Amino acid sequence: MTVIACDFGGTRIKVGLVRSGYVLRQLAIDARSSRPLVERLAEVAAAVQQLCESAAIRPRDCNGVGISFPSIIDPDGRVLGEFGKYGPVAAEDFTRWTESSWSLPAVIENDARLALIGEKVAGAATGHDNAVMITLGTGIGTAALVQGELLVGIHGQAAILGGHQTVVVGGRQCVCGNRGCAETEASSSALPRILAAMGRSDLSTLAPQYEDVFKAAASGDECAAAVVARSLAVWGTVAVNLVHAYDPSIVVLGGGVMRSRDIILPAIAEYVTKHAHTPWGNVTVVASQLGDAAALVGAEWLVDQRLSLKA
Amino acid sequence: MTVIACDFGGTRIKVGLVRSGYVLRQLAIDARSSRPLVERLAEVAAAVQQLCESAAIRPRDCNGVGISFPSIIDPDGRVLGEFGKYGPVAAEDFTRWTESSWSLPAVIENDARLALIGEKVAGAATGHDNAVMITLGTGIGTAALVQGELLVGIHGQAAILGGHQTVVVGGRQCVCGNRGCAETEASSSALPRILAAMGRSDLSTLAPQYEDVFKAAASGDECAAAVVARSLAVWGTVAVNLVHAYDPSIVVLGGGVMRSRDIILPAIAEYVTKHAHTPWGNVTVVASQLGDAAALVGAEWLVDQRLSLKA
Repeated sequence: MTVIACDFGGTRIKVGLVRSGYVLRQLAIDARSSRPLVERLAEVAAAVQQLCESAAIRPRDCNGVGISFPSIIDPDGRVLGEFGKYGPVAAEDFTRWTESSWSLPAVIENDARLALIGEKVAGAATGHDNAVMITLGTGIGTAALVQGELLVGIHGQAAILGGHQTVVVGGRQCVCGNRGCAETEASSSALPRILAAMGRSDLSTLAPQYEDVFKAAASGDECAAAVVARSLAVWGTVAVNLVHAYDPSIVVLGGGVMRSRDIILPAIAEYVTKHAHTPWGNVTVVASQLGDAAALVGAEWLVDQRLSLKA
Repeated sequence: MTVIACDFGGTRIKVGLVRSGYVLRQLAIDARSSRPLVERLAEVAAAVQQLCESAAIRPRDCNGVGISFPSIIDPDGRVLGEFGKYGPVAAEDFTRWTESSWSLPAVIENDARLALIGEKVAGAATGHDNAVMITLGTGIGTAALVQGELLVGIHGQAAILGGHQTVVVGGRQCVCGNRGCAETEASSSALPRILAAMGRSDLSTLAPQYEDVFKAAASGDECAAAVVARSLAVWGTVAVNLVHAYDPSIVVLGGGVMRSRDIILPAIAEYVTKHAHTPWGNVTVVASQLGDAAALVGAEWLVDQRLSLKA
């Protein structure tokens, strides 16, 4: 089967053609996720069209469109809790779009869940039936596979709110209504506020990147080093709490912030070894192998699992 | 069926005779859980004997012994991570004991899981297939039921380590090796250290109770009031994090500390309403209905599920 995969991130929208766990081709466009979704779909359709032409594949010969979205998708396909990204969205917005564009059905799932499935199918979690994923991107996404099954929950929100687990009782106010969430204590979206609070307007540009903070820390900037130490402790804590919550044998770290994996991966692995309570043995902590492509590969699985096959 | 249920708590060992979700009779003896388990079993057997005689039921006519234990029980029946309670224990210690005492098989499971099952079978969680339990006892126990199934995990430790979720990054050192665990930030076992750190040797007796702290707070003691406010925020955080982790429709609060339920229940319910991200609606927060008997009722379910029936 061949699947059109669309991954709506906070910063970029990635589209791909996926077959048998392999991304044939992919390209990305700016997300502009503060704009309503419906205004973005024409451009995404053009990207899909371009992709298909370059691969000499007709969209209508594909089996469906798998959509990865940074929200809670409830069992009835409603999209909940988008925290402002892409404005209010419904699963029907996607099905109408794919039906009218290419007469193809669409199926939608949370982005971190699909990234985990991608890593399980063809990446870092191959062979693991008990795995958790942490995506350090604009925000923090999480997902869990327990005894071979994706943990979804009755309202669709099990395991994906790990970025909104409280890691500091009474900590910073988060957009979700909670305080001290991991995502508001240490993520790209929280970085401007964290740096501004330290009086670092030089590092606090409109869109500061963790890469820059890691660089500044490496150059001896004590303030940047403090942000790095704190962020690594928060991410390590998220990993430990997910290990305690879901009992995995492997933790996969993905997302754009993992461009600095040389620093992040050993730090989190050490934190988990030191702090997680796993009397059965040691949890493996690894970096995503598929990177950006993980959720695209997961989208093929989604179409396979949830839609009857056309071919 | 009739089951002998034994619940090994940190403070007391409860034994009961359970039939069809109903505890026919129960009694409790001191746990003395700092002593090795094997030294306690003769006294527990005597209590069971006394219970059976008073109910005119012969132990050997029962279907089995269901054991509730405050540890991780792995899928092979190994007892892991006891944090010093009852010393090193193996499931065989129980099976040898019940076989030699009454020719009965024994089956063992984590105490918070059995309390949740008890509440599901005959208590506060009746009718709920998606539920979490928090037991505020000597420590903090947790368990989760997801879409009708008890979440156990591949190494047996899924969902039961909620007392060892980090709620304060870099917080107090916990016995488990982690820092800032909920259990070390606010539980009966942490209370002596919390009070001593505040210089309150008057409240910090050998075994201070939350009830006393709640009373002192109500009498205008500002230090006690601070401990109460902090503890309620920690427990509220545990509830929010479990809601985010497992997507339940109900949170059940149990354990000895819930003797002060008039204060705790409304505070945690309000905290969850205010801080949990549940766009689908509101989570119900309730007190245990079965109290001490919850894990005993759960022990009958355990024998029913995991042992073939004798009668």
